[in-house]
Amino acid sequence: MEKLISVREAVDIVLKETKILGTEKVKIINSLGRIIAQDIVSPFDMPPFRRSAMDGYAIKFDDLSFTKIFEIKDEIKAGEVKDIKYEKGKCVLIMTGAKVPEDFDTVVKFEDTEEIFENGKRKIRILKEIKRFGNIAERGEDFKKGDVLIKKGGVIDSGYMAIIAYCGIDEVSVYKRPKVGIMATGNEIKKIGEKLKEGEIYDCNSYSIYGLVLKYGGEPEILGIAKDDKKSLKNLIMKGFKKRKDILVLSGGVSEGKYDFVVDVFNEIGIEMKFWKVAIKPGKPTFFGKKGNCLIFGLPGYPVSAYINFENLIRPAILKMQGITTFERFKVSGILAEDIENKGDRDEFLRVILKVENNENLIIPYKEQKSGIFTSITYTNALLFLKKGEKIKKGKKVIVEIYK
Amino acid sequence: MEKLISVREAVDIVLKETKILGTEKVKIINSLGRIIAQDIVSPFDMPPFRRSAMDGYAIKFDDLSFTKIFEIKDEIKAGEVKDIKYEKGKCVLIMTGAKVPEDFDTVVKFEDTEEIFENGKRKIRILKEIKRFGNIAERGEDFKKGDVLIKKGGVIDSGYMAIIAYCGIDEVSVYKRPKVGIMATGNEIKKIGEKLKEGEIYDCNSYSIYGLVLKYGGEPEILGIAKDDKKSLKNLIMKGFKKRKDILVLSGGVSEGKYDFVVDVFNEIGIEMKFWKVAIKPGKPTFFGKKGNCLIFGLPGYPVSAYINFENLIRPAILKMQGITTFERFKVSGILAEDIENKGDRDEFLRVILKVENNENLIIPYKEQKSGIFTSITYTNALLFLKKGEKIKKGKKVIVEIYK
Repeated sequence: MEKLISVREAVDIVLKETKILGTEKVKIINSLGRIIAQDIVSPFDMPPFRRSAMDGYAIKFDDLSFTKIFEIKDEIKAGEVKDIKYEKGKCVLIMTGAKVPEDFDTVVKFEDTEEIFENGKRKIRILKEIKRFGNIAERGEDFKKGDVLIKKGGVIDSGYMAIIAYCGIDEVSVYKRPKVGIMATGNEIKKIGEKLKEGEIYDCNSYSIYGLVLKYGGEPEILGIAKDDKKSLKNLIMKGFKKRKDILVLSGGVSEGKYDFVVDVFNEIGIEMKFWKVAIKPGKPTFFGKKGNCLIFGLPGYPVSAYINFENLIRPAILKMQGITTFERFKVSGILAEDIENKGDRDEFLRVILKVENNENLIIPYKEQKSGIFTSITYTNALLFLKKGEKIKKGKKVIVEIYK
Repeated sequence: MEKLISVREAVDIVLKETKILGTEKVKIINSLGRIIAQDIVSPFDMPPFRRSAMDGYAIKFDDLSFTKIFEIKDEIKAGEVKDIKYEKGKCVLIMTGAKVPEDFDTVVKFEDTEEIFENGKRKIRILKEIKRFGNIAERGEDFKKGDVLIKKGGVIDSGYMAIIAYCGIDEVSVYKRPKVGIMATGNEIKKIGEKLKEGEIYDCNSYSIYGLVLKYGGEPEILGIAKDDKKSLKNLIMKGFKKRKDILVLSGGVSEGKYDFVVDVFNEIGIEMKFWKVAIKPGKPTFFGKKGNCLIFGLPGYPVSAYINFENLIRPAILKMQGITTFERFKVSGILAEDIENKGDRDEFLRVILKVENNENLIIPYKEQKSGIFTSITYTNALLFLKKGEKIKKGKKVIVEIYK
């Protein structure tokens, strides 16, 4: 099973095997970050009536041809509806957000007037040049009844929460969150809290994966660490199945010497192996299998490789399960700060730092790109895809993908 | 109280009045997005020992001068420590992550060898050019004992979670999350679920604010809607104090005509008004007061203005309470897609779309910048600060702040 497939091919296989989960209803206040499973269609125009955009005085603009002084005839508070009729030279005190009576076409804001008393009457004098229709928000100027304000498949952020509320909708349909079981493998891997003996290290992959699953909307659970024996690995995977996980993620079980071992376990359990290796650096030894609707991923033990291949292969699966249809990361173009060359035998994702310097977006490749150097994850914010054999000179324009 | 202050001045006042909250301990799996209140110092070198980076065979490099065939003397699994002594022309099968015995200096990976049998002995033949020290990860090459891996004040992301776990740390000290009480004001504002009469609209600001508070690490609670009378506003603010909120955010209570009204309520309750207006568009009518350590913000009723001034003024307070010391947003430089000009009487934050087109970052100002058009929030991803009177031509380079 030496055949290497490209990342693109691997993602296609993963997505082909990934089913969209069902939907459920949540209250708006619990919807942040969820993927909406319905269109939000406006039930009314917004604003639903012609309203005052300022605290001020509603006038009929044509009156300005003969006077700058208006008698205050009445007043309208926000929320009040008064059908006040026009009388020559008279105005209506009106508060922001209130419906402007039909006979009036312009609002003069407080600051552009002074109040005066004349013949025992409250009047205003207009102090500035006024525009016709000034400070009036037309009915439906934000959106109209029937407008699709949010499309199914969008991520609910604070702006979407406001739009949903604006429409008076309290509960929305969202896609279910994938349940992801996380496990590490390896005799040398110890659980935090245990004492390390020589030759051992703590499990860190389970925690970066935990954080990534949360970030992309899944419900993570750490299931434990399997020893390098078939029984231990089999038991841990079975635990994941019993807990009805949608995705199982193993790290560390996929080095060259463990192929037969993992394949035996998969055969015993009935997991179908879809691919075993990906032609990418970091992260070549990465497998993907399936049983029923449960996806099983094996990531390398190296924290950098595990992290980047989670980003490349598991992130799209988690997103697709939640109804998302585009998986591209946010892209930014910038100037490369130093020469780079991919001398390896595979395409590569360089970890880079994108920052603005002297008005330019500068792309700075992290100094150390080895899979063993986890600081290349913690101190960078973008990925630069470099094809096998590709060279790019300092100063050239490149596009990077923001992954933080 | 007509004095307008700049956004910069307003932020400085807010930050001056903001106290950092205390700290608490959380388990790593509950730490995503929290602000760390301790440095993370590595308790050991990582890797903690010289280890094999591949499944393969440990050899002494100098042996290659006389042979390409090595007898397999022993084997070492990951997690095993065996102090195997060097014998001329012999190698040790070793798995990824295992400690390399001192006498050996190079690992030849499986793929670069073939196994052969000679005189009943298991041997390997090396098929490729090998580099001295190849596939050996030196002790401490990722980080060293005593290295400060994470500095106090950083946001815990999935990478940080992995680093903390790597160090064997199960619980970290983080800053407490600010408790934020959210209220709307206005006779025309109705709670979702209530029936709208003419002249009324639903409360949407409470929900965008709820989402923003969550996004920046606070604990939001919606407290309700106050009518435009002193008693109602006072009661709602008192409810916030009783619930011991660190921040209270009102929207809609700050139009020109309500100044005396709000000031009266503040005086009765003992809130000290720090500023009332900010010279910024959108969001001029925005107040800030303080009682004890509780910060009280009044945002405009316009959803766009409320949103942007939350970003400008309340976000820094929420971050500072959690121990963050830099409040700048992520910046990106790009090419302006059309002429812009700030003809208003205040500095302005334009809502823009940043996207990559033809290898360039294009900055597209949203077509409608009125405070009443909430879609300018939902359909944009960046803010462009434009000084009063400033003009910029299409094609010029500008820097925007990502706010989504």
